Amino acid sequence: MKLDETDKAIIDLLQSDGRMPFSSLGPRVDLSPAAVRQRVLHLIDQGVMQIVAVTDPTTLGFTVQALVGINIDGALDAAAERIARIEEVDYVVIVGGRFDILIELVAGDHDHLLEIMNEIRSFDSVRSTELFTYLRLEKQTYNWGTR
Amino acid sequence: MKLDETDKAIIDLLQSDGRMPFSSLGPRVDLSPAAVRQRVLHLIDQGVMQIVAVTDPTTLGFTVQALVGINIDGALDAAAERIARIEEVDYVVIVGGRFDILIELVAGDHDHLLEIMNEIRSFDSVRSTELFTYLRLEKQTYNWGTR
Amino acid sequence: MKLDETDKAIIDLLQSDGRMPFSSLGPRVDLSPAAVRQRVLHLIDQGVMQIVAVTDPTTLGFTVQALVGINIDGALDAAAERIARIEEVDYVVIVGGRFDILIELVAGDHDHLLEIMNEIRSFDSVRSTELFTYLRLEKQTYNWGTR
Amino acid sequence: MKLDETDKAIIDLLQSDGRMPFSSLGPRVDLSPAAVRQRVLHLIDQGVMQIVAVTDPTTLGFTVQALVGINIDGALDAAAERIARIEEVDYVVIVGGRFDILIELVAGDHDHLLEIMNEIRSFDSVRSTELFTYLRLEKQTYNWGTR
Amino acid sequence: MKLDETDKAIIDLLQSDGRMPFSSLGPRVDLSPAAVRQRVLHLIDQGVMQIVAVTDPTTLGFTVQALVGINIDGALDAAAERIARIEEVDYVVIVGGRFDILIELVAGDHDHLLEIMNEIRSFDSVRSTELFTYLRLEKQTYNWGTR
Amino acid sequence: MKLDETDKAIIDLLQSDGRMPFSSLGPRVDLSPAAVRQRVLHLIDQGVMQIVAVTDPTTLGFTVQALVGINIDGALDAAAERIARIEEVDYVVIVGGRFDILIELVAGDHDHLLEIMNEIRSFDSVRSTELFTYLRLEKQTYNWGTR
Amino acid sequence: MKLDETDKAIIDLLQSDGRMPFSSLGPRVDLSPAAVRQRVLHLIDQGVMQIVAVTDPTTLGFTVQALVGINIDGALDAAAERIARIEEVDYVVIVGGRFDILIELVAGDHDHLLEIMNEIRSFDSVRSTELFTYLRLEKQTYNWGTR
Amino acid sequence: MKLDETDKAIIDLLQSDGRMPFSSLGPRVDLSPAAVRQRVLHLIDQGVMQIVAVTDPTTLGFTVQALVGINIDGALDAAAERIARIEEVDYVVIVGGRFDILIELVAGDHDHLLEIMNEIRSFDSVRSTELFTYLRLEKQTYNWGTR
Repeated sequence: MKLDETDKAIIDLLQSDGRMPFSSLGPRVDLSPAAVRQRVLHLIDQGVMQIVAVTDPTTLGFTVQALVGINIDGALDAAAERIARIEEVDYVVIVGGRFDILIELVAGDHDHLLEIMNEIRSFDSVRSTELFTYLRLEKQTYNWGTR
Repeated sequence: MKLDETDKAIIDLLQSDGRMPFSSLGPRVDLSPAAVRQRVLHLIDQGVMQIVAVTDPTTLGFTVQALVGINIDGALDAAAERIARIEEVDYVVIVGGRFDILIELVAGDHDHLLEIMNEIRSFDSVRSTELFTYLRLEKQTYNWGTR
Repeated sequence: MKLDETDKAIIDLLQSDGRMPFSSLGPRVDLSPAAVRQRVLHLIDQGVMQIVAVTDPTTLGFTVQALVGINIDGALDAAAERIARIEEVDYVVIVGGRFDILIELVAGDHDHLLEIMNEIRSFDSVRSTELFTYLRLEKQTYNWGTR
Repeated sequence: MKLDETDKAIIDLLQSDGRMPFSSLGPRVDLSPAAVRQRVLHLIDQGVMQIVAVTDPTTLGFTVQALVGINIDGALDAAAERIARIEEVDYVVIVGGRFDILIELVAGDHDHLLEIMNEIRSFDSVRSTELFTYLRLEKQTYNWGTR
Repeated sequence: MKLDETDKAIIDLLQSDGRMPFSSLGPRVDLSPAAVRQRVLHLIDQGVMQIVAVTDPTTLGFTVQALVGINIDGALDAAAERIARIEEVDYVVIVGGRFDILIELVAGDHDHLLEIMNEIRSFDSVRSTELFTYLRLEKQTYNWGTR
Repeated sequence: MKLDETDKAIIDLLQSDGRMPFSSLGPRVDLSPAAVRQRVLHLIDQGVMQIVAVTDPTTLGFTVQALVGINIDGALDAAAERIARIEEVDYVVIVGGRFDILIELVAGDHDHLLEIMNEIRSFDSVRSTELFTYLRLEKQTYNWGTR
Repeated sequence: MKLDETDKAIIDLLQSDGRMPFSSLGPRVDLSPAAVRQRVLHLIDQGVMQIVAVTDPTTLGFTVQALVGINIDGALDAAAERIARIEEVDYVVIVGGRFDILIELVAGDHDHLLEIMNEIRSFDSVRSTELFTYLRLEKQTYNWGTR
Repeated sequence: MKLDETDKAIIDLLQSDGRMPFSSLGPRVDLSPAAVRQRVLHLIDQGVMQIVAVTDPTTLGFTVQALVGINIDGALDAAAERIARIEEVDYVVIVGGRFDILIELVAGDHDHLLEIMNEIRSFDSVRSTELFTYLRLEKQTYNWGTR
């Protein structure tokens, strides 16, 4: 999907306040509330944008959060797709460098974490995993704007 | 801030649809629309939750996104705070493992990336950086629920 | 097993002096000697606590002591259980980081060490081992108290 | 201190049961209860042996336990002595291999862990630290006997 | 093929200007234009020298260029030959060190890069790959002369 | 400099045969020999393209060729520029990954190599170097075409 | 074989001058020339000592000398024995650390080196090799004496 | 010093038996005993060859032998020379790869080893050391012949 300048302006505003009413959002991008509502729904339907509550999981009862560097045997995309199907894995990215894939996961406790790690490690395509336990989440923003 | 079961139920629902109207949200957690609005604003004000548009930056004109593993000289929290002040850095976490701090950043092109890297590397507390360039973002979700 | 404040106080005292007579221990935690003896035996039976002689093995004729970082193929807990059955391995912990499992072992000489290493390395689940030979044991305490 | 066969036999027995009464211990090593008591106290006074309660700290309210690999600038023994003075560090060993020193530490929570890490990292002799968070303690024994 | 001093002098001059006319080149090496042309064609036919346009691929529409460190199972030369047959791989060298083989490749975009990486990784002889993405090409010369 | 389709077609042809006469090159890109000569000179003057003799240095009396991975303190571009001024260094690229900069160098023998390495290592910005000695150059092509 | 003080004194002297005549060696260790000859032959027959010419291979026409770090699958001693049978490998030691086995080898040129590496890498027990090419041999002595 | 074929033949024979009498050695290389003695002394005086007793230090009362990988700040040759002056260091080589310098050392016990390591680590040019303790010396030969 190709974004025009109005799309980008809408995304920009919602990156700071995801619940801004259509009646405020519309005028700021020179659209009626109904037209801007249409645009927003379209951007969400097309997967360009999600509007969601973002939290620090440790405040919600999850005591363990971690990034995991993974090395893969064979094709990278198939392995990434397989790992992405695990519910507790919320972030999966194929990267260049010492690791092939980096993921983020959230667990209730260490036993839960071990269970998730064992599931990931049971895949034939996973050669090795290296866990980076979160000690403190210092910054988490989503308003990088548009270009 | 201590969360009760109603707070958690609200967060749970907004993790899937951040723009759910208060008139739908209230009844689902046994509150009036006005009362649930009060709760939501309070959760946002207290920093427990952000409601924001989340996107894949590469669809917005940012051609370069990367995770960076950083090793630090001396205190970890002071260094993390310093790095978090850089605008293009959207995620900063202190971790245990081979790296001391992991960050995510978003740049317009390779020259922009070099500039950001040079800024990070100019801090006395930064001993070394290791870049993981994004090849493909496979999964990005925020609805991990509550416990 | 859930520990109450009295259990914790008992453990605290025995961490400093494991042979403290029940007649001294009881009064300090407001119990009779018989009652405190009951508690101590229960804590031992339930596996919460061992009361043991702890030594530096090199003073006892063991010339080689080492930590070993181990990387595993597949499930971590099954591999850890298998390795833990080796008599000369006195400590086994599943960790996050560059290694999957860290163990401590004690051997009479280098030939004995090679034998133990070969046994560990003969398991299908063990991908690689990395030995850290002890040059000097600087501190070994067990009185971290309770919380 | 040079150990004779009787010393070793005493240590051997106390490695399995640290509270064995002198009246049981004596006959097993062909000594009177008073004589064996003398020996035990001497072994403890000389630092050959500690008799202590050993526990899994996570059952005592410590949620975080970790091994830390440390690389040092300059002399190894002076650095090890300095680190050993930190109360939360219960184990310090100078090793050969990728790390210069390996330590174990116990903390109440992640903030407490960060504080300890910052203290260690504030020493001039500490060049870098690498944390291995405990996911599960599988084995912990002390009865390796004597040679 | 054994090179004489005249061959080396010719190569030396063409390293600086690959299109120098034979009428200029000849006199500088004490040959007639026809004779120097003969020599140049012979050096090219024997594979000693290529005369080619060398560019920075990023100026030609290739957005991704990378070096890749590769570790191999088994024989090094057979693996290198196999990888060298991939069109997008323009440089292949067997080296001593942490990697067994280093290659350079050029791709149109990240999806194209992933495709090439998957092809390389599909070979049985390829154990692992580590990508070094180009951020900026600072120098590229070919006039190292002769000895 | 912005390249049009004719520029790209010219480059494409010269990547295979850098000495193709203007009289052959012109017609293939629908230009007169004089016009194509103009274009070629302009592309060279602007630094888009070099036309040069490319060789395997080991056939020219250089017994040692190597890639070197370099880690840098501080700004990456300033360090790369400094290193690029060394004559024996023919290739310098700033990369993302385990190393900050990768270079290629050519030396007459091991003593010469040591001299070059010592020069690189004498710069304040160079923290460490890791040498990859060439055992065999398997492929070296420059005709990747244009996009 | 158990060495007495006289054996050690003999070895000590021969570490400095391997060709010292028995007529000089005998008196220095209070033995007749015939008796010391007997001892020397016995020490050689028992494999305690070799008396040999030691050289820097690069002065003898070997242009490539290297240490190789090797990682092994399975038993260490069987793998070491197998590698030790290769003629060009002059030194094999099983070690603790990042590598399992370290060897030294000597080759006539890079093609010869590749051949040896391929032979080592063809063994099932060899998982990976890492080559350290010699740039300069700075010291090589054998007179460490005895204890 | 330039070696002729006779020099090489002499070295070849002495690599197998360093004490071969001149009366046997001479005829094998077509020289009189007196002439071959002259040659041998010259080869030793010029530092081409040492004739020495070579042993496994662990049979001589040295319980600890190790290779050490060293990383250096600044010039490699000056650092190697400095380290080579330590008596217990019997082998020093500048290499290409993950380490800059590799040395071998021999120590009486772990305290002695620590002392040597601290001495090496006290030099400004030494950034880090990584110890590889010997578990078993499998092969040690010196008869690689000549080319």
